[in-house]
Amino acid sequence: MAIQSVNVEWTSGMVFKADANGFRIMLDADEKVGGTNQGPRPKSLLLTSLGGCTGMDVVSILKKMRIEPEYFNIRLEGEVRDEHPKSFTRIHLIYEFRGKDLPLDKLQKAISLSQEKYCGIFATLRNSVELTTEIKIIS
Amino acid sequence: MAIQSVNVEWTSGMVFKADANGFRIMLDADEKVGGTNQGPRPKSLLLTSLGGCTGMDVVSILKKMRIEPEYFNIRLEGEVRDEHPKSFTRIHLIYEFRGKDLPLDKLQKAISLSQEKYCGIFATLRNSVELTTEIKIIS
Repeated sequence: MAIQSVNVEWTSGMVFKADANGFRIMLDADEKVGGTNQGPRPKSLLLTSLGGCTGMDVVSILKKMRIEPEYFNIRLEGEVRDEHPKSFTRIHLIYEFRGKDLPLDKLQKAISLSQEKYCGIFATLRNSVELTTEIKIIS
Repeated sequence: MAIQSVNVEWTSGMVFKADANGFRIMLDADEKVGGTNQGPRPKSLLLTSLGGCTGMDVVSILKKMRIEPEYFNIRLEGEVRDEHPKSFTRIHLIYEFRGKDLPLDKLQKAISLSQEKYCGIFATLRNSVELTTEIKIIS
């Protein structure tokens, strides 16, 4: 078992500063719930974590396939319960690519490999959140 | 259902830049796996997300109880599978407090309320990851 650890330290109000791999990340709540918007919300960081994880997989698999898109973005839309606890019920992942002659089947293959085999965050969430996927090729 | 969304855009190599609530977060992989360490790893962001979520709950519950610690930190230690997919199997949360005459029972109560009732990230993860808790009062 590998161990990963972070420290998330309270500074004041609803502001926390995290030390993650030596990088500082500020977190804060929305003004509506007593925050001061000095950093992103925890839920956005979870979506960011999932997007980065599957994105890095896809980029490295495509590199092995000798495919390099000009533009690659993952948009993540998370649905959250209206009642407490406001957990995620569904996360929709939109993989957006732009580039010359991008082969759709290989993009699909790279995304499937990430989601089925490699992405540890996807695998962590898949049993508790409905995860849905869309691929967009922007021309 | 409320919707939360982020964009995680590839820049180059294994580097991605996220736009989360208008804040930019860089992500990168470890040098051992082809990254250049320009930002934290996705798994650290998931731990940060969980720490920030439960931390904000605890701070606001303690505030209602008129308790203000001098220091409050959440250390999160995640155990990750050695094989692909390297998902989290267990996350240990260590809530560390320092302050004058901190009542342990109320700290425990605030943490329980967060974990049982309020924290959406905790509720999202609890069905797929073993979540364990420790409280430390530093004198």
